[in-house]
Amino acid sequence: ETSVTLYGIIDTGIGYNKVEVGDNYEAKKVGLINGVQSGSRWGLKGTEDLGDGLQAIFQLESGFDSSTGFSAQDGRLFGRHATIGLQGESWGRLDLGRQTNIASKYFGDVASPFGASFGQANVGATFGSANTVRWDNMVMYQTPNFSGFQFGVGYSFNTNGSQDWDVDNDPTSDDNDEGITTGLRYANGPIGAALTYDQVKNDVVDGKVKAWNLGLSYDFEVVKLHAGFGQTKDGWIGAGNFGAGAPRADMYEDGLEANLYTVGVSAPLGAGKVMASWAMADFDDLNGQELDKQSIYSLGYTYALSKRTNIYAYGSYADNLYGLDDAKSTAVGVGLRHQF
Amino acid sequence: ETSVTLYGIIDTGIGYNKVEVGDNYEAKKVGLINGVQSGSRWGLKGTEDLGDGLQAIFQLESGFDSSTGFSAQDGRLFGRHATIGLQGESWGRLDLGRQTNIASKYFGDVASPFGASFGQANVGATFGSANTVRWDNMVMYQTPNFSGFQFGVGYSFNTNGSQDWDVDNDPTSDDNDEGITTGLRYANGPIGAALTYDQVKNDVVDGKVKAWNLGLSYDFEVVKLHAGFGQTKDGWIGAGNFGAGAPRADMYEDGLEANLYTVGVSAPLGAGKVMASWAMADFDDLNGQELDKQSIYSLGYTYALSKRTNIYAYGSYADNLYGLDDAKSTAVGVGLRHQF
Amino acid sequence: ETSVTLYGIIDTGIGYNKVEVGDNYEAKKVGLINGVQSGSRWGLKGTEDLGDGLQAIFQLESGFDSSTGFSAQDGRLFGRHATIGLQGESWGRLDLGRQTNIASKYFGDVASPFGASFGQANVGATFGSANTVRWDNMVMYQTPNFSGFQFGVGYSFNTNGSQDWDVDNDPTSDDNDEGITTGLRYANGPIGAALTYDQVKNDVVDGKVKAWNLGLSYDFEVVKLHAGFGQTKDGWIGAGNFGAGAPRADMYEDGLEANLYTVGVSAPLGAGKVMASWAMADFDDLNGQELDKQSIYSLGYTYALSKRTNIYAYGSYADNLYGLDDAKSTAVGVGLRHQF
Repeated sequence: ETSVTLYGIIDTGIGYNKVEVGDNYEAKKVGLINGVQSGSRWGLKGTEDLGDGLQAIFQLESGFDSSTGFSAQDGRLFGRHATIGLQGESWGRLDLGRQTNIASKYFGDVASPFGASFGQANVGATFGSANTVRWDNMVMYQTPNFSGFQFGVGYSFNTNGSQDWDVDNDPTSDDNDEGITTGLRYANGPIGAALTYDQVKNDVVDGKVKAWNLGLSYDFEVVKLHAGFGQTKDGWIGAGNFGAGAPRADMYEDGLEANLYTVGVSAPLGAGKVMASWAMADFDDLNGQELDKQSIYSLGYTYALSKRTNIYAYGSYADNLYGLDDAKSTAVGVGLRHQF
Repeated sequence: ETSVTLYGIIDTGIGYNKVEVGDNYEAKKVGLINGVQSGSRWGLKGTEDLGDGLQAIFQLESGFDSSTGFSAQDGRLFGRHATIGLQGESWGRLDLGRQTNIASKYFGDVASPFGASFGQANVGATFGSANTVRWDNMVMYQTPNFSGFQFGVGYSFNTNGSQDWDVDNDPTSDDNDEGITTGLRYANGPIGAALTYDQVKNDVVDGKVKAWNLGLSYDFEVVKLHAGFGQTKDGWIGAGNFGAGAPRADMYEDGLEANLYTVGVSAPLGAGKVMASWAMADFDDLNGQELDKQSIYSLGYTYALSKRTNIYAYGSYADNLYGLDDAKSTAVGVGLRHQF
Repeated sequence: ETSVTLYGIIDTGIGYNKVEVGDNYEAKKVGLINGVQSGSRWGLKGTEDLGDGLQAIFQLESGFDSSTGFSAQDGRLFGRHATIGLQGESWGRLDLGRQTNIASKYFGDVASPFGASFGQANVGATFGSANTVRWDNMVMYQTPNFSGFQFGVGYSFNTNGSQDWDVDNDPTSDDNDEGITTGLRYANGPIGAALTYDQVKNDVVDGKVKAWNLGLSYDFEVVKLHAGFGQTKDGWIGAGNFGAGAPRADMYEDGLEANLYTVGVSAPLGAGKVMASWAMADFDDLNGQELDKQSIYSLGYTYALSKRTNIYAYGSYADNLYGLDDAKSTAVGVGLRHQF
């Protein structure tokens, strides 16, 4: 009996990226791209039956840049996932360690045909809390699937790095970003739905950054429709980086608020699948300053060479990145992905 | 024929730690704990028969923090172990590379029911040279088991990191901490015994840090008794860290001397095993300054869910850490450990 | 069907190195050596049949120091190799990612009995472009074997690290070292031949560093003869490091030119193989300064304990390192290598 499964994905391609901010700034890059459809990784996972429907479960997953061989996730060895847990048929599962939040687990694939994949086309570029947000020091509980429903809730003692001590009379101590993540998903026949909520205590803001998302999908078989709506408040969990010169900001800021929208569609096309989506972040004024609507338009295609290997092409155009007027990002690429 | 075995352990739990120094300092932490019973790891090992009773042997073992996914052992890829060697039925084994010293191999499990495990309960918190001390650049020879006896001796060209060059007329060159480790152990029926000696040349002290340990155990089947005695001189090999604000010091200091004591007991309890130990470091005065006796009281319990998976609970209280008056550390935790 | 192969090599030994520069500088080191015959590594590789003679191929190879357990290749996780590709019986193979250049693939084993192995005896110590030069962000195409001939060509968008953006009006941007590598090899019966060309655009030099190599070998069965000739211009691709105090220089310098020569021989000796080589770099004057001829004399012996395990001994003496008068390096060592 094998007690461990060794697995992985390599995803490398060639792409073009351009970032502009008004007439003053323009940056370009042509070259190898990596992890566009799926982050390159190798991992170890296993399940052991303990009797009475109880199982021990673990997963260690190591992310890397397939263009350079460097570890991803700030140099972590198992930066994508590092958990041990117990699973019971009747009561669900409990996982301890580094893992994605509930929004990244439940929301992405429902709300967008791209899910959390394909770089800028990734639903997380707009719905930040679903931007494959990984938290350290997490305790997570998820119910079993009840008639298509699953509920999950997690708490991270510190989302990024080892926990800090709480030292009496030392205000610089206890510098932990505590995170709460929860959500519900439903999948039954053609219908998919997900509702998620995340909040992070961050020292930069007075209070907590909060975000919730609602996603729906319906599979008409000829086409599959996806839609999502959400709100983020006092910051932007999972803020990403559109590239050189693009506004990024820490995105933890009192008063920052945005309504988030997306609609998307996927359909079989030849032996592959075509995907398209639109997503928008509609910011409120921030401290009297007007922020523009961030819009992202994306188109992609995947074609299976086998069950484990496929090629893909994608293009995405974003405007008013993080609310900055006339900040644009264009990304196109083709790639090869292999799973083992 | 498989030429390599992939294996590992994940150990994660939830714990509470408090460190106090008199009335002036108090630090606390509640959250995920990792590697308490066994350091989380994955590894590769193998044995190849070369004929005539000769075998090639290797082991590569990678330690990591299961709460965050970061590599342990200062970011080493194979920080727990990296050796290649030869083994002969008649003459023993020779291993080259990074590995633990003899005290960590032979002494811990004899002298304490906790062995080198369970954090502060670890026998190495008192007997530093058995504190899972890993040395780089080591050549180690160990005899076969002769009627229960095994002898080992190792030399490290530099215990920590790549070897430095010895440049003529450059006193800053040749900055290598050379280590010698040796010991004898005996195991036969209910009796276990271990005697070890370690010394490290360190530039901080004028001379060498030295430590020896003697451990004894007897298994009455109802209970197993453990005892250890040792001495450390001009420093403290394998000095650990009790946590934020706890005295740690480099522990290489001319004139530092301590007698080390421990007694412990383990016994089956229900379907598990209960363990208890007391350990003390009795320091001599250091440069006219009085140092207090460091005492550690520990209690633990492990319960097997299967041959490969168990849960555990432990608590430990330490006083006068590293001789500092009224410096206390309390640690309690529960965890889940899985081996694959 | 297994979809991934786990493999590796560990190579550790004991050696002595001395570097002298005239009467003023002398540095010595005795201790563990690692990766002398083969860099210590573990890796994952696989091939999947996609039908019609097409295959998906990947290889992830992680280098490490077997004396200390640290990752090699500047801390990369998969620093030796990280590629995904497609392979067709009729058209050859295309690999994307980090890998060695063509000179390192084709030239070394033809031009020298040591190939790219055995430290200072390595043909790359003289023919730098074959010094196991690994480039990130590479697209490489190689033909199939046609009657013993194989042709390859590769382009790296940036040889070392993630690609830099090209920002308008920012001369510090686009700091990419683009590399081109190409070559032809022939192997048929007793004859081996290789011709390679490499160039790298580097900001330090005005223009490009260029190097070409020609290697020939003939296997008389009693002995195998090897010879190589090459030229390097405006720098030295794959410049290595002979050790403490040895001249190294960045080796990218306008006007630097050298003719490169080597001859070598290998022969069965007892149950093993003996290897010997001489190599020279004959520098042109550089900016009016005379550079001396670098010469390297090497002798080695390998002895197989099994198909997967061998021991080795080697010695090498180098004079006028990188053209510096009276700069000498001596290296001797014995080691144990195991493949799994």
